[in-house]
Amino acid sequence: MIYKSISFTQKLGLFAEQWKPKVVAEMNDYQFKVVKLKGDFVWHEHQDTDETFIVIDGDLRIDFRDGAVHVLSGEMFVVPKGVEHKPYAEGEVKLLLIEPRGVLNTGDVGGERTAENDVWI
Amino acid sequence: MIYKSISFTQKLGLFAEQWKPKVVAEMNDYQFKVVKLKGDFVWHEHQDTDETFIVIDGDLRIDFRDGAVHVLSGEMFVVPKGVEHKPYAEGEVKLLLIEPRGVLNTGDVGGERTAENDVWI
Repeated sequence: MIYKSISFTQKLGLFAEQWKPKVVAEMNDYQFKVVKLKGDFVWHEHQDTDETFIVIDGDLRIDFRDGAVHVLSGEMFVVPKGVEHKPYAEGEVKLLLIEPRGVLNTGDVGGERTAENDVWI
Repeated sequence: MIYKSISFTQKLGLFAEQWKPKVVAEMNDYQFKVVKLKGDFVWHEHQDTDETFIVIDGDLRIDFRDGAVHVLSGEMFVVPKGVEHKPYAEGEVKLLLIEPRGVLNTGDVGGERTAENDVWI
C-alpha cells in the first residue's frame, strides 16, 4: 500500500486566503487544519473544547481578557475551553490548528468572520 | 495572568534519552509528547486510537506490514487505530506525538521497550 506524509509547507502553498482553515488530516474525531492569519480577529470562546495552536511560521499573539501570549514558529499553545480569546497577527502567520471535528473558527460567537467548516485541502 | 507558549526545541533540549516520550501539554483528554528516537522499535498497534506523529527534526520511517512512509521535518502522519507499525530512525529523530492520555508507546504489545507513561517535562 502507498502511505504518504503530510507536509504543512506544501499544504500552505496551495492557497493564499487568510482566516479560512483547511483540514489536512484527522485523528479519531479530531481535525488538523492549516490556516493563514493576518490582522485582528473577533473575541470568541469554545464552550465545549480546548483548542490547540501550533505556529509553523510567524508570530501569533493570542489576547485574553487578562493578558496575552506570543506563539512563535516551533511553539504551541492550548487555549482552554470556555476562555475568551482573540488571535492577532502583525505579519502573516501560518499555523496548524487542532480541535474536534465540527468546531467553528468563531466558536460560539458566529458572525461574518465565521469560515465554512470541514473544508479539506 | 501570565500565559506561556511551549517551545518544542526548548523541551527537547532538556533531555537526551531516546524512546521515552515526555508530555508537554494536554488538550481535553489528549496529550502532546516530545520524544527522541534512533534505531529500531518493536512492532505494535493501538487497538483503540489513531496516533499522530509530527516530525520536528530528522527523517522518521514508519514501517507497516505492507509498506512504509518517511516523515520529515515539518511533516505529519496519522497511524490509524489497529494498524501494526514500527518506527525506525536511521539518525536521531525529534518528534511530537499526539494521542489520548493513557496510551503506551508499545501499544497492546508491552515488553521491555515500554516507557513509563504520563511523564511531564
